[in-house]
This record gives sequence, structure tokens and C-alpha cells, in this order.
Amino acid sequence: MTLIKVSSQSSTASVAGAIAGIVREEGKAEIQMIGAGSINQAMKAMVLARGYLKDDGFDVVFYPEFVDLDFDGRLVTAIKIIVESR
Amino acid sequence: MTLIKVSSQSSTASVAGAIAGIVREEGKAEIQMIGAGSINQAMKAMVLARGYLKDDGFDVVFYPEFVDLDFDGRLVTAIKIIVESR
Repeated sequence: MTLIKVSSQSSTASVAGAIAGIVREEGKAEIQMIGAGSINQAMKAMVLARGYLKDDGFDVVFYPEFVDLDFDGRLVTAIKIIVESR
Repeated sequence: MTLIKVSSQSSTASVAGAIAGIVREEGKAEIQMIGAGSINQAMKAMVLARGYLKDDGFDVVFYPEFVDLDFDGRLVTAIKIIVESR
């Protein structure tokens, strides 16, 4: 499954476009983010992506999970959101 | 439907407990938040709530919407998240 990485600097429209594109192709997408700023951008992108996909007949829902990432021995807890059409 | 309001100061465990309790009772819950700090707390609470509810046989997903709120004439865009068992 294609993973979209979101930062606090990510454009919400670009992330929304990526989510919509991947869901159209693969039926499912994953978004990964670390920190409040990136979660904020991802959340706004999810609202937009849901609108884009609704126009194409997809009703998408989301669920979040914690993911532990290892940056050279430093353990960081990230959020991964799974996007699925229902 | 019962609306849970989340701030950046909200405890994730308390919000998660509220989400789980309302979903168990009503099958559905709504969470409302304004700003990156509160979205961060709400997202972490959803991961926890999903875990609590999984133990009870509920598989919950969410979808976010924008909501315009009027504070004495000042229009603020908030995020509303609908949590549903699927």
C-alpha cells in the first residue's frame, strides 16, 4: 500500500490530491505523520479528500494507529491513518 | 448525538473514555475541536478509544468535516469528527 508522509509544511490540497489519487487506484491509502502540526495538516487534507472522492462515488472513512519509528536508535511515536472506501 | 468538545488541554485518556462510552451507548459519537493542539489530542484519543472498543467487539472508523462556528459574530472554522462503528 502506498504511504503518504505528511509534515507540518505539507500543503493540504496536495496531500488531499495524493490521498484521493491513491484511493482511486488502490482502494486504500496510508498517511503517516509525527507531531501536532502534521496531524493538523493531515486532518484538513482528509476533509478535502473525502469531498473529492465523494464526487467519484467513494465514501471513505479513516482509522488511526500508533507506529513506533526508529531514527538511528531514537524511538519516535508517529500516527498512521488508514484510509478505506466503505 | 452527544458532542464531545476537545481542547489542547484535554486528557487523551479522558476523551478516549468519553468516545468509547458514547459509542457503546449510542453506536456513534461526534468530537469537535478548534486548532492544531486540540486536533492532536483528539487523534491520540481516537487511537486509544479504538483499542478500548475493539475489546468490546466494536470496529470504529471516523471521518472529519469542517464546521463553521459563530462566536459573537466572529466566524471560526472547527473540525468535527464523526466516529462510527462499522
